[in-house]
Amino acid sequence: MTNVGWIGLGAMGSPMASCVAKAGHLVTAFDIDPQKAVALAGDGVKAAATVRDAAVGADVLVLMVATADQAEAVLYGDGNAAEALHSGSVVLLMATVGPAAVEDWAQRLATTGVQIVDAPVSGGVARAGRGDLLIMVSGAAAAVETAQPLLDAMASNAPVVGTEPGEGQKVKLVNQLLCGVHIAVAAEALAYAEALGLDAGTTWEVLRHGAAASFMLDDRGARMIDDSNDDIRSTTDIFVKDMGLVTAAARAQSYPTPLASAAEQLYLAGRRAGLGRADDSSVIQILRGTATASR
Amino acid sequence: MTNVGWIGLGAMGSPMASCVAKAGHLVTAFDIDPQKAVALAGDGVKAAATVRDAAVGADVLVLMVATADQAEAVLYGDGNAAEALHSGSVVLLMATVGPAAVEDWAQRLATTGVQIVDAPVSGGVARAGRGDLLIMVSGAAAAVETAQPLLDAMASNAPVVGTEPGEGQKVKLVNQLLCGVHIAVAAEALAYAEALGLDAGTTWEVLRHGAAASFMLDDRGARMIDDSNDDIRSTTDIFVKDMGLVTAAARAQSYPTPLASAAEQLYLAGRRAGLGRADDSSVIQILRGTATASR
Repeated sequence: MTNVGWIGLGAMGSPMASCVAKAGHLVTAFDIDPQKAVALAGDGVKAAATVRDAAVGADVLVLMVATADQAEAVLYGDGNAAEALHSGSVVLLMATVGPAAVEDWAQRLATTGVQIVDAPVSGGVARAGRGDLLIMVSGAAAAVETAQPLLDAMASNAPVVGTEPGEGQKVKLVNQLLCGVHIAVAAEALAYAEALGLDAGTTWEVLRHGAAASFMLDDRGARMIDDSNDDIRSTTDIFVKDMGLVTAAARAQSYPTPLASAAEQLYLAGRRAGLGRADDSSVIQILRGTATASR
Repeated sequence: MTNVGWIGLGAMGSPMASCVAKAGHLVTAFDIDPQKAVALAGDGVKAAATVRDAAVGADVLVLMVATADQAEAVLYGDGNAAEALHSGSVVLLMATVGPAAVEDWAQRLATTGVQIVDAPVSGGVARAGRGDLLIMVSGAAAAVETAQPLLDAMASNAPVVGTEPGEGQKVKLVNQLLCGVHIAVAAEALAYAEALGLDAGTTWEVLRHGAAASFMLDDRGARMIDDSNDDIRSTTDIFVKDMGLVTAAARAQSYPTPLASAAEQLYLAGRRAGLGRADDSSVIQILRGTATASR
């Protein structure tokens, strides 16, 4: 049984924390919205009043916040979790924040004997609820060993991709480059079919099991065709953030990303049109020319 | 048993003609290279000395040439097959040439009682050899019925996507938009992994079964990672042609294609670097910065 501090109970964080608690670990969780932790009491999650309350006594502090700025605030800003953590504890960083931020925190946390395990996730809310995520893990072997019981509770697949924090983030960025472009091209292809006078749904059925197949064409394609589907599973804003991280890391290596950059422009146009909080499949409206800020 | 005239015995055309001959149809085939038909004698394909010899007496004339210009030359140029075809026969157009050319031929052939079945294919050489292609069929019901025994011999899946010639081409363009972008983004993602200091092969293994999955990431990704693989299965030049058709058809509808256009630029850069006749997976060299005209 591991003493777990948990920061961040959003759409992904809540089911992930529940999986860890239900696996028998002692989870003390904080979210800006206090109701989030209360809602998980039935799964055994204990509510913390502050970031510090979640961090004190934790063997593993999980960060499942949205952005690098939020994680910085938790560790060194208002939260000041870095000071509360005891030597030998592990920060399990599960947000997508890019490699540079994680490398920086790893250096600063090392000064007080705290190690970081870099562990961004892929898979969405439904798989998070089933403990069926893909987690891209990097960190020192001993630190990964400390976090392993939590990873086992959340993931069906948690490959260790490197020994340095930041390498997990790099693999996640490659994943997001592919996912972000695949969603964008699904939108481009289906709206193109409509522009040519084809029925998008019929065309999708004909093509989705052949050489044009992708997970995103299947998954997001279905929602792009079904206008009545207002589910919000993953927002446009997430890809605005993640494609920004992808292209920033590329630029730092003087590496060109013609496709990711084109996709990033589409997500930015989506946010600009008021679709930032809508499901990312809504970017098809930009290509259809039907985007309205009212959605 | 159908009397079949066949024009074009390239990498795809040869195994497709063999499948039709082995299904019991009388295939008389012409290719600019006379050796191509001779090589298929064992499968029952009869060599024609000219386009006209293949067309005379054919109930179905199959066109599996590379470009619209070649098909135009076969029908109305040097070949003059249109004059040789009898009323009630069917032209089975299996090349990817775009909807505009097919609509034009349909009108002109109708004046002599010849119907066109639009039937572009997807699937590659290996599936062509197994009679396992996806064929996107459009045309009048009676004409499709005439061609059906040939389609059955070549395809595992030959959905009728419309009653007008050109609609098959449109669905094929949607397919090529997706395939062309998926190949390009596989290259972009794998070379990006390398630029970030990751091992591309390990990263590919971690990501290819998750949300980033695509048929092309699996298929072309394997060849991008394995530098020793010099197989040429589908050339860069094919996507230079097909992405050109995709973007031209989009422009005709004032429809923007940010991703297809970015991918088109990559294929053009590949041809420019001497990779036109190389496997399309070679475009990763453009992103790696290792393209040399020597390949």
